[in-house]
Amino acid sequence: MIAVHIENGRVEVRRRPKPRRRQGFALIRLLCGGICNTDLELQRGYYGFRGTPGHEFVGEVVEADDPALIGRRVVGEINLACGRCNWCGRGLGRHCPNRTVLGIVKHPGAFSEFFTLPERNLHVVPDGVATEEAVFTEPLAAACEILDQVHIPREDAVAVRGKGKLGLLIGQVLAAHGYVVHFYGRQDGVPRAAFRWVVDATGSADGLRQAVEMVEPRGVIVMKSTMHGTVAMDTAPIVVNEVTLIGSRCGRFEPALELLRSGELRLQEMISARFPLSEAPRAFERAAQKGVLKVLLTPG
Amino acid sequence: MIAVHIENGRVEVRRRPKPRRRQGFALIRLLCGGICNTDLELQRGYYGFRGTPGHEFVGEVVEADDPALIGRRVVGEINLACGRCNWCGRGLGRHCPNRTVLGIVKHPGAFSEFFTLPERNLHVVPDGVATEEAVFTEPLAAACEILDQVHIPREDAVAVRGKGKLGLLIGQVLAAHGYVVHFYGRQDGVPRAAFRWVVDATGSADGLRQAVEMVEPRGVIVMKSTMHGTVAMDTAPIVVNEVTLIGSRCGRFEPALELLRSGELRLQEMISARFPLSEAPRAFERAAQKGVLKVLLTPG
Repeated sequence: MIAVHIENGRVEVRRRPKPRRRQGFALIRLLCGGICNTDLELQRGYYGFRGTPGHEFVGEVVEADDPALIGRRVVGEINLACGRCNWCGRGLGRHCPNRTVLGIVKHPGAFSEFFTLPERNLHVVPDGVATEEAVFTEPLAAACEILDQVHIPREDAVAVRGKGKLGLLIGQVLAAHGYVVHFYGRQDGVPRAAFRWVVDATGSADGLRQAVEMVEPRGVIVMKSTMHGTVAMDTAPIVVNEVTLIGSRCGRFEPALELLRSGELRLQEMISARFPLSEAPRAFERAAQKGVLKVLLTPG
Repeated sequence: MIAVHIENGRVEVRRRPKPRRRQGFALIRLLCGGICNTDLELQRGYYGFRGTPGHEFVGEVVEADDPALIGRRVVGEINLACGRCNWCGRGLGRHCPNRTVLGIVKHPGAFSEFFTLPERNLHVVPDGVATEEAVFTEPLAAACEILDQVHIPREDAVAVRGKGKLGLLIGQVLAAHGYVVHFYGRQDGVPRAAFRWVVDATGSADGLRQAVEMVEPRGVIVMKSTMHGTVAMDTAPIVVNEVTLIGSRCGRFEPALELLRSGELRLQEMISARFPLSEAPRAFERAAQKGVLKVLLTPG
């Protein structure tokens, strides 16, 4: 089979033996993969990554312990938790200290003809949801996570900084929940102390600094950007204005699948290009270009 | 009268005309002042400060609109709010955008034989509370603010980073509320992901970075240090571990006075030295020395 391989900043396509599934794991055939900014960060050396990336996917189960899964279209939670620790016991395997992470930490990713994932991580894609929509489940879950973490009164406006893939997706999720969303791109002005709720999805240090300027005293900044390296922050306004910053990463898949089923999202307009796996280097190149939204990988 | 004056990093004692109170303001005679780290920051040029510092005080009311105040020992909230804006309407004059701040922003401070403050900012010191205890009301209120902002389950341990004035005071307040407090100084090790609640009162960039290492996933860091300049932060662990950072500044005086009345605090051991106002330069020098806790200023 072929699989994408990242090493020293290069994206390659390599021939690999088909992986063998362990007990409790499903063997999955890729139907569609989505390139995320984290994948581009991995290419740049984030986490000292070397291997097969890919954590946004829809696949078909080929082999599994549970016969009911075979032949089904699935998406999958990316954290492979130990299932035994205190975090797992609290239903927060996403924070399990022993976890590996699909395509990010010590578990080969989904940008591969075949890959494995624990069966308990899988969710069957509802009928009526297209594969090219379902491939957004993981980033949608990350967007939904915000509403799991903070309780925003329905009448409050929310500012989203960042008009990239994740920012637009977060905006769609918030709008679908009835919130009025104000988008701010990198070039847009920074209204001072204007919003009680600001989401930073710029992936840039400037975005976070601007979020601090935009938020009103006692307001909340949701940090959605995993940036590589350090950010020079003036922390005094955070303290003086008693601002809350809350890091936000992966979310539960259930609300994301619910939203997909509702048909309220406009996901086709989020897709910029499609490439076969064999052209992954071009796909990564395209995904890194300015203004490009989601780039999908298809088998072949 | 004499008043402390800060300019270009120098602390001086100057002769000044006694201030005249405006309507709604009380004229107050200093009984005791406390030097805070913010005063030392002001000396270093924080806020571009020039003038009379001092915001921790106990005074005696000399003149006031309200005759019942005259002759009383008082402490005072440091934010002079406009009383008309939305923030003031919500009882959050501490965040009024039009505010001045005693001894910090455009209102002469309390390190002066006489000074003024709005009568509505004043709280009468309860009988039975010594002046040298009551002078801790403002920093105690700032410590109590933490418990106004976050709800810490009684069984959770709290780590306090910073064994300076504010850190020790925060520890006393938390202990008085029944929490088990673990203190960590600058030299102490940094247990990884060990606490759900971490208070950073180090006043240093390292302290904040170490707090991020100490806090467990989904944990909360209370930021109590107003540092001058920028802090180089790796924000990725905040996002990945979904940590909450919450800025915390001034608090309500009522719970602080309640604590003082309870007699549960050990404040005498927090006092390192006393100097008359006329020796303010020496007092500031002493306050800046390593390991020195509260330095008090007395009249004369």
